[in-house]
Amino acid sequence: MVDCRLRAGLELLAHTWDPLIIVALRDEPLRRRVLKDAIGGVSDKVLTESLNRLLANGLVTRRSFAEAPPRVDYGLTPLGRTLLDGPLRSLGHWLDGHADELLAAQEAAEAG
Amino acid sequence: MVDCRLRAGLELLAHTWDPLIIVALRDEPLRRRVLKDAIGGVSDKVLTESLNRLLANGLVTRRSFAEAPPRVDYGLTPLGRTLLDGPLRSLGHWLDGHADELLAAQEAAEAG
Repeated sequence: MVDCRLRAGLELLAHTWDPLIIVALRDEPLRRRVLKDAIGGVSDKVLTESLNRLLANGLVTRRSFAEAPPRVDYGLTPLGRTLLDGPLRSLGHWLDGHADELLAAQEAAEAG
Repeated sequence: MVDCRLRAGLELLAHTWDPLIIVALRDEPLRRRVLKDAIGGVSDKVLTESLNRLLANGLVTRRSFAEAPPRVDYGLTPLGRTLLDGPLRSLGHWLDGHADELLAAQEAAEAG
Protein backbone atom coordinates (compact mmCIF):
# COMPACT_ATOMS: atom_id res chain seq x y z
CA MET A 1 0.00 0.00 0.00
CA VAL A 2 1.09 3.51 -0.74
CA ASP A 3 2.06 5.47 2.39
CA CYS A 4 -1.19 6.83 3.80
CA ARG A 5 0.60 9.78 5.32
CA LEU A 6 1.38 11.18 1.89
CA ARG A 7 -2.35 11.64 1.43
CA ALA A 8 -2.38 14.11 4.31
CA GLY A 9 0.26 16.18 2.54
CA LEU A 10 -1.45 15.97 -0.82
CA GLU A 11 -4.65 17.10 0.85
CA LEU A 12 -2.89 20.34 1.81
CA LEU A 13 -2.08 21.00 -1.85
CA ALA A 14 -5.29 19.65 -3.35
CA HIS A 15 -7.16 22.93 -3.05
CA THR A 16 -5.20 24.97 -5.53
CA TRP A 17 -5.87 28.32 -3.87
CA ASP A 18 -4.40 27.24 -0.54
CA PRO A 19 -0.79 26.86 -1.75
CA LEU A 20 -1.16 29.99 -3.89
CA ILE A 21 -2.10 31.92 -0.74
CA ILE A 22 0.97 30.52 1.02
CA VAL A 23 3.15 31.72 -1.84
CA ALA A 24 1.48 35.16 -1.82
CA LEU A 25 2.29 35.56 1.89
CA ARG A 26 5.97 34.70 1.46
CA ASP A 27 7.33 38.22 2.11
CA GLU A 28 4.96 39.71 4.68
CA PRO A 29 1.49 39.47 6.19
CA LEU A 30 -1.20 40.93 3.96
CA ARG A 31 -4.63 42.37 4.50
CA ARG A 32 -7.39 40.30 3.00
CA ARG A 33 -8.07 42.71 0.15
CA VAL A 34 -4.39 42.90 -0.83
CA LEU A 35 -4.09 39.13 -0.62
CA LYS A 36 -7.13 38.69 -2.83
CA ASP A 37 -5.66 40.99 -5.48
CA ALA A 38 -2.28 39.26 -5.24
CA ILE A 39 -3.59 35.82 -6.06
CA GLY A 40 -6.18 37.01 -8.58
CA GLY A 41 -9.42 35.45 -9.70
CA VAL A 42 -10.66 34.01 -6.42
CA SER A 43 -14.19 34.71 -5.12
CA ASP A 44 -14.78 35.98 -1.59
CA LYS A 45 -16.51 32.75 -0.67
CA VAL A 46 -13.67 30.55 -1.87
CA LEU A 47 -11.06 32.82 -0.33
CA THR A 48 -12.81 32.53 3.04
CA GLU A 49 -12.94 28.75 2.73
CA SER A 50 -9.25 28.61 1.83
CA LEU A 51 -8.20 30.88 4.68
CA ASN A 52 -10.27 28.88 7.17
CA ARG A 53 -8.63 25.66 5.97
CA LEU A 54 -5.15 27.18 6.19
CA LEU A 55 -5.91 28.48 9.70
CA ALA A 56 -7.24 25.07 10.76
CA ASN A 57 -4.09 23.39 9.46
CA GLY A 58 -1.86 25.82 11.33
CA LEU A 59 -0.25 27.10 8.12
CA VAL A 60 -1.56 30.67 8.30
CA THR A 61 -2.25 32.99 11.20
CA ARG A 62 -4.78 35.82 11.47
CA ARG A 63 -4.14 39.02 13.40
CA SER A 64 -6.69 41.67 14.38
CA PHE A 65 -5.65 45.23 15.13
CA ALA A 66 -7.86 47.48 17.24
CA GLU A 67 -7.89 50.35 14.81
CA ALA A 68 -10.65 52.40 13.20
CA PRO A 69 -11.62 50.92 10.82
CA PRO A 70 -10.62 47.52 12.28
CA ARG A 71 -7.68 45.93 10.49
CA VAL A 72 -7.08 42.21 9.97
CA ASP A 73 -4.17 40.58 8.23
CA TYR A 74 -2.98 37.08 7.40
CA GLY A 75 0.56 35.77 7.56
CA LEU A 76 2.50 32.52 7.47
CA THR A 77 3.09 30.50 10.61
CA PRO A 78 6.50 28.85 11.02
CA LEU A 79 4.85 25.61 9.84
CA GLY A 80 3.44 27.35 6.77
CA ARG A 81 6.88 28.70 5.97
CA THR A 82 8.40 25.21 6.06
CA LEU A 83 5.78 24.06 3.53
CA LEU A 84 6.72 27.03 1.34
CA ASP A 85 10.47 26.51 1.65
CA GLY A 86 10.31 22.74 1.11
CA PRO A 87 7.63 21.16 -1.07
CA LEU A 88 6.35 24.31 -2.77
CA ARG A 89 9.83 25.50 -3.64
CA SER A 90 10.64 22.04 -4.95
CA LEU A 91 7.53 22.14 -7.15
CA GLY A 92 8.56 25.54 -8.47
CA HIS A 93 12.04 24.24 -9.31
CA TRP A 94 10.53 21.23 -11.02
CA LEU A 95 8.41 23.49 -13.20
CA ASP A 96 11.40 25.67 -14.02
CA GLY A 97 13.15 22.60 -15.36
CA HIS A 98 10.26 20.68 -16.90
CA ALA A 99 7.51 23.09 -17.98
CA ASP A 100 8.48 22.77 -21.67
CA GLU A 101 8.45 18.98 -21.44
CA LEU A 102 5.06 19.03 -19.72
CA LEU A 103 3.61 21.38 -22.32
CA ALA A 104 4.96 19.27 -25.18
CA ALA A 105 3.38 16.15 -23.69
CA GLN A 106 0.04 17.94 -23.27
CA GLU A 107 0.12 19.18 -26.85
CA ALA A 108 1.01 15.75 -28.17
CA ALA A 109 -1.90 14.24 -26.22
CA GLU A 110 -4.32 16.83 -27.58
CA ALA A 111 -3.12 16.21 -31.11
CA GLY A 112 -4.05 12.57 -30.48
CA MET B 1 0.69 38.41 -8.99
CA VAL B 2 1.65 34.95 -7.91
CA ASP B 3 3.58 33.05 -10.56
CA CYS B 4 0.95 31.58 -12.87
CA ARG B 5 3.22 28.70 -13.75
CA LEU B 6 2.98 27.32 -10.25
CA ARG B 7 -0.70 26.72 -10.94
CA ALA B 8 0.24 24.28 -13.67
CA GLY B 9 2.29 22.31 -11.16
CA LEU B 10 -0.37 22.43 -8.48
CA GLU B 11 -2.87 21.21 -11.03
CA LEU B 12 -0.80 18.02 -11.38
CA LEU B 13 -1.12 17.37 -7.66
CA ALA B 14 -4.68 18.61 -7.21
CA HIS B 15 -6.26 15.27 -8.05
CA THR B 16 -5.05 13.27 -5.10
CA TRP B 17 -5.07 9.91 -6.87
CA ASP B 18 -2.70 11.08 -9.59
CA PRO B 19 0.34 11.55 -7.34
CA LEU B 20 -0.55 8.40 -5.41
CA ILE B 21 -0.42 6.47 -8.70
CA ILE B 22 2.99 7.98 -9.45
CA VAL B 23 4.24 6.82 -6.06
CA ALA B 24 2.77 3.34 -6.58
CA LEU B 25 4.67 2.99 -9.88
CA ARG B 26 8.01 3.96 -8.35
CA ASP B 27 9.62 0.52 -8.55
CA GLU B 28 8.23 -1.03 -11.71
CA PRO B 29 5.36 -0.89 -14.21
CA LEU B 30 2.19 -2.46 -12.89
CA ARG B 31 -0.87 -4.01 -14.46
CA ARG B 32 -4.02 -2.04 -13.88
CA ARG B 33 -5.45 -4.51 -11.36
CA VAL B 34 -2.25 -4.59 -9.32
CA LEU B 35 -2.03 -0.81 -9.42
CA LYS B 36 -5.61 -0.48 -8.22
CA ASP B 37 -4.93 -2.76 -5.26
CA ALA B 38 -1.70 -0.92 -4.46
CA ILE B 39 -3.33 2.48 -4.06
CA GLY B 40 -6.51 1.18 -2.43
CA GLY B 41 -9.98 2.63 -2.35
CA VAL B 42 -10.23 4.03 -5.87
CA SER B 43 -13.16 3.22 -8.16
CA ASP B 44 -12.61 1.96 -11.72
CA LYS B 45 -14.10 5.14 -13.13
CA VAL B 46 -11.84 7.44 -11.13
CA LEU B 47 -8.79 5.26 -11.81
CA THR B 48 -9.46 5.52 -15.55
CA GLU B 49 -9.79 9.30 -15.29
CA SER B 50 -6.56 9.56 -13.32
CA LEU B 51 -4.62 7.34 -15.71
CA ASN B 52 -5.91 9.30 -18.71
CA ARG B 53 -4.82 12.56 -17.10
CA LEU B 54 -1.39 11.15 -16.24
CA LEU B 55 -1.00 9.85 -19.79
CA ALA B 56 -2.07 13.24 -21.22
CA ASN B 57 0.48 15.01 -19.03
CA GLY B 58 3.26 12.67 -20.12
CA LEU B 59 3.87 11.41 -16.59
CA VAL B 60 2.80 7.82 -17.14
CA THR B 61 3.09 5.50 -20.11
CA ARG B 62 0.87 2.60 -21.14
CA ARG B 63 2.17 -0.57 -22.79
CA SER B 64 0.16 -3.28 -24.50
CA PHE B 65 1.51 -6.80 -24.89
CA ALA B 66 0.14 -9.10 -27.57
CA GLU B 67 -0.51 -11.99 -25.27
CA ALA B 68 -3.53 -14.13 -24.58
CA PRO B 69 -5.27 -12.74 -22.62
CA PRO B 70 -4.01 -9.29 -23.70
CA ARG B 71 -1.81 -7.63 -21.09
CA VAL B 72 -1.55 -3.88 -20.41
CA ASP B 73 0.63 -2.17 -17.87
CA TYR B 74 1.38 1.35 -16.71
CA GLY B 75 4.76 2.79 -15.80
CA LEU B 76 6.46 6.08 -15.12
CA THR B 77 7.92 8.15 -17.94
CA PRO B 78 11.25 9.91 -17.30
CA LEU B 79 9.19 13.09 -16.67
CA GLY B 80 6.97 11.28 -14.17
CA ARG B 81 10.05 10.03 -12.37
CA THR B 82 11.41 13.58 -12.00
CA LEU B 83 8.11 14.62 -10.39
CA LEU B 84 8.43 11.67 -8.01
CA ASP B 85 12.08 12.31 -7.17
CA GLY B 86 11.64 16.07 -6.71
CA PRO B 87 8.36 17.55 -5.45
CA LEU B 88 6.75 14.34 -4.20
CA ARG B 89 9.85 13.26 -2.31
CA SER B 90 10.09 16.76 -0.84
CA LEU B 91 6.48 16.53 0.31
CA GLY B 92 7.17 13.17 1.90
CA HIS B 93 10.18 14.57 3.75
CA TRP B 94 8.11 17.54 4.91
CA LEU B 95 5.51 15.18 6.35
CA ASP B 96 8.20 13.11 8.06
CA GLY B 97 9.34 16.24 9.83
CA HIS B 98 6.06 18.04 10.42
CA ALA B 99 3.20 15.55 10.64
CA ASP B 100 2.99 15.90 14.44
CA GLU B 101 2.90 19.68 14.20
CA LEU B 102 0.20 19.52 11.53
CA LEU B 103 -1.90 17.12 13.59
CA ALA B 104 -1.54 19.27 16.71
CA ALA B 105 -2.71 22.34 14.77
CA GLN B 106 -5.69 20.45 13.39
CA GLU B 107 -6.65 19.19 16.83
CA ALA B 108 -6.33 22.67 18.35
CA ALA B 109 -8.56 24.08 15.60
CA GLU B 110 -11.17 21.40 16.18
CA ALA B 111 -11.14 22.07 19.91
CA GLY B 112 -11.93 25.67 18.98
